[in-house]
Amino acid sequence: MRISGRSIIGFQEGGTTGEVFRATRPWDGTQLLPDFVSATFEEVTLAARLAHEAFATYGRCSGHDKGALLRKIAAKIESMADQVIERAEQETALPKVRLQGETARTCAQLRLFAQVVEEGSWTAARIDTADPERKPIPKPDIRSMLRPIGPVVVFGASNFPLAFSVAGGDTASALAAGNPVIVKAHHSHPGTSEIVGRAVQESVRECGLPEGVFSLLFGSGTQVGTALAQNPLVKAVGFTGSRRGGRALMYLAAARPEPIQVFAEMSSTNPVFILPGAMRERGEQIAAGLHGSFTLGAGQFCTKPGMVFFGDNADAVAFTEKLRQALPSVPQFTMLNAGITSSYRSVLASRKKDPAVRLLAETQPSAEFSVGAALFETDATSFLANPVLADEMFGPATQLVRYSNCAELMEIARSLEGHLTATIHGTEQDLREFPDLIAVLENKVGRVVFNGFPTGVEVCHAMVHGGPVPSTSDGRSTSVGSQAIFRWVRPVCYQGFPDAVLSEELRDTNPLAIWRMVDGELTRQPIGVPSGG
Amino acid sequence: MRISGRSIIGFQEGGTTGEVFRATRPWDGTQLLPDFVSATFEEVTLAARLAHEAFATYGRCSGHDKGALLRKIAAKIESMADQVIERAEQETALPKVRLQGETARTCAQLRLFAQVVEEGSWTAARIDTADPERKPIPKPDIRSMLRPIGPVVVFGASNFPLAFSVAGGDTASALAAGNPVIVKAHHSHPGTSEIVGRAVQESVRECGLPEGVFSLLFGSGTQVGTALAQNPLVKAVGFTGSRRGGRALMYLAAARPEPIQVFAEMSSTNPVFILPGAMRERGEQIAAGLHGSFTLGAGQFCTKPGMVFFGDNADAVAFTEKLRQALPSVPQFTMLNAGITSSYRSVLASRKKDPAVRLLAETQPSAEFSVGAALFETDATSFLANPVLADEMFGPATQLVRYSNCAELMEIARSLEGHLTATIHGTEQDLREFPDLIAVLENKVGRVVFNGFPTGVEVCHAMVHGGPVPSTSDGRSTSVGSQAIFRWVRPVCYQGFPDAVLSEELRDTNPLAIWRMVDGELTRQPIGVPSGG
Repeated sequence: MRISGRSIIGFQEGGTTGEVFRATRPWDGTQLLPDFVSATFEEVTLAARLAHEAFATYGRCSGHDKGALLRKIAAKIESMADQVIERAEQETALPKVRLQGETARTCAQLRLFAQVVEEGSWTAARIDTADPERKPIPKPDIRSMLRPIGPVVVFGASNFPLAFSVAGGDTASALAAGNPVIVKAHHSHPGTSEIVGRAVQESVRECGLPEGVFSLLFGSGTQVGTALAQNPLVKAVGFTGSRRGGRALMYLAAARPEPIQVFAEMSSTNPVFILPGAMRERGEQIAAGLHGSFTLGAGQFCTKPGMVFFGDNADAVAFTEKLRQALPSVPQFTMLNAGITSSYRSVLASRKKDPAVRLLAETQPSAEFSVGAALFETDATSFLANPVLADEMFGPATQLVRYSNCAELMEIARSLEGHLTATIHGTEQDLREFPDLIAVLENKVGRVVFNGFPTGVEVCHAMVHGGPVPSTSDGRSTSVGSQAIFRWVRPVCYQGFPDAVLSEELRDTNPLAIWRMVDGELTRQPIGVPSGG
Repeated sequence: MRISGRSIIGFQEGGTTGEVFRATRPWDGTQLLPDFVSATFEEVTLAARLAHEAFATYGRCSGHDKGALLRKIAAKIESMADQVIERAEQETALPKVRLQGETARTCAQLRLFAQVVEEGSWTAARIDTADPERKPIPKPDIRSMLRPIGPVVVFGASNFPLAFSVAGGDTASALAAGNPVIVKAHHSHPGTSEIVGRAVQESVRECGLPEGVFSLLFGSGTQVGTALAQNPLVKAVGFTGSRRGGRALMYLAAARPEPIQVFAEMSSTNPVFILPGAMRERGEQIAAGLHGSFTLGAGQFCTKPGMVFFGDNADAVAFTEKLRQALPSVPQFTMLNAGITSSYRSVLASRKKDPAVRLLAETQPSAEFSVGAALFETDATSFLANPVLADEMFGPATQLVRYSNCAELMEIARSLEGHLTATIHGTEQDLREFPDLIAVLENKVGRVVFNGFPTGVEVCHAMVHGGPVPSTSDGRSTSVGSQAIFRWVRPVCYQGFPDAVLSEELRDTNPLAIWRMVDGELTRQPIGVPSGG
């Protein structure tokens, strides 16, 4: 497939009059062809209008039809995987093996949502049957289910050019729920975005769905994103990126005449607590795992462990030493783009200047466009006094924080802002000695990990990838796993309706054989048949 | 019980230094004793701190213990119902029989939530079991459930002094979910609020729960509410009131360093569509029902039908005439308070001045503090051209809108903003002739009513009382029915945890025998036992 550099607006191709930009090879800063044309305001408006029009049809598609679309997208991406991966490698400097894994994950994610909507119970159908004899007034028949909300805008993320991008988790879950999607491509991997975008566009066409179900817009700056978030036909936004970018979108959305929800995943430092027993028994092993976790993918994961708390004792010395020795094993990294490289360098520089922080080790990159890994250390008192030490360092760096007693550890836990994850390394004895630690951490994060590492986010039914502000804009939601479908829906209820005009999910006979709550009891039985599983 | 006029701050009594105000008898404007003392900023801070502290315990209470609290509150309210109703009648002018019904509804609501949390499946537990053999990397054990979010602030509503007030739906659902609650009493029924508040306070004490589980703060102006919404320990807000008030809270919440969700129910005009067949067959009967619905409770329901659309034909003449004739059957009404009375008078005055609107009938109140009912009429062209004609008139007034053809009807439906409800009166033939009407309306409202009236909101599992902006601040939620519990929770997942430290909901043995999603299948079986219902 030839990359055209033009936006995808339904079944149409974007114009050539917008501002032009190019992707860049992160290894040497050279530009990649072709030119990409930013969408104009008129094109944004057109994409939103097409999406709104498509919603009338697509919002009422069956789970079977939506599943077919998602499966077709997955198959098409697989069929062009070589080209996708080759271009993505050039645009992101992520290794091929990682990109192969991410492609597989993206397709698995699409199929997971296909499975969820084909099965159908996700709609949370509830039926309260009528009681015409009830006194003082008859009880009406009331039935509710989750319904899609309308056009959704998804911002592609820089650090997952596939799994959190054009056909990534937000797109898959929004399409599964029945919402048309407009993707704003991330400007640092536009070619990858276009290839995947064409796969989605072709799938929509081959499934006989209206063109507005999907659009992909290019934009070099913030104008396209701003126009999308302000468009009155857009009903929700999904975003993965910086705290500044996410917060700007949140303000835009809140100031609209009709405010909408922004699901922004912004930043997270992912605290790790190594309790005394675990440190004694497995200190060196934890050090090896931690090194792998914080340097994985050049530390460019939202779940990278960025602060590590442990008691200041003899066991900790061996742990720290092991971690320091591991650092040169991967001496240098090429980051995703020039902006991220420069942010990482500047956060390292300012952390180094902090008088309360000691640089334990760092590696020196030999190439101009590379960065090194860094290991910092501070103590609990300084950490508690200085909130900036809890900020994310996006890149292959982490910070050790020594505490001197249990009370200090609990004070640190209580002082934390919202993060995506928190990790505890401990023995059963440790958990008995810190009985409140889990209870405090579960209020601070979306996922608590025990004796593991936070990187590697399993795509499954129970995953929660989302945490309280400021890690995300709305800690009541996940961007990974099948529960992500609940971002893009709202419950609607139907009172006194004739069976024939109700959606299949709500009909007496339960033709889809889904799980429903009937008069307060979960059942797959039709109405009128006694339940019993 | 003597009414003290002092706020309830945990187990403590508010001070006497704040600004003082009194309740007023709506019939004649006379003041009722005693003086009520507005909470100070320090008292707001104290209530929030107590709530935050209580959350550590209350947020981990079992469903059984939370159920016991809710049931005790219901029993206490019933035991003091006479005093509550007597005071509420004086403060709101609502008839005793209505207040008796509302008391029963409030207690039924508390018990519905008790039942939901005692049963426990509402927590949506999900378990994805581990697979250590999976390639390329082992699959971890991941378990998620819904958890409470922390202190919730509830603003009492003027129009439901019991069911949407101190121990109303928001309080009941927030407590059920495991969140401490701080209620800002509505200034127009402070005595009713205090009596119910003491019932809750005593229940918390008798259940042996920490005092911060509940506080009730008085305030004559907006200061107390503002301070509550801005307090960093507060994690969500529930509000029922004006669009201006709700919007102000939304802005406050969005501008916080840690933005929080505001569930504001603001205004709704609840469109009614009478299709030609229904008008022909049942026009007079619909007119009688409509009159009852729009004048019920002096039209002071958020679900009052405020605009009625029908075809301009001979059948409509009889319908309109019937409605006009019904008007004098209840000639005058006393509204909830002076502010609402004056707003109603001014919205009537401006509607009367609108050249596109005709006053078909109105009744003249004989008493100074009363208001009359009013019936307006306009045509579809004027309605579409003039958005102000879709605004809520809070009080016993409604507006008929004649359309001349199907296309105009559909244009009206598509032009609607978000409302709580939409109603269709139709025959099966009508529904065939307007195939898209339901599909358009379900995107505009939370509840679609067929051949009924929107007033009367059933408290049940399938109810959705909430609609898109501007009817509420967040159309993905309901304030009535058992699904309201989902306002106040977020999912949290636990990776690789030993069974013993997990909540009962997530343990292998499923000791609570709740429904859980295990590896994608709903089951009540323990882990390791094949499912089968």
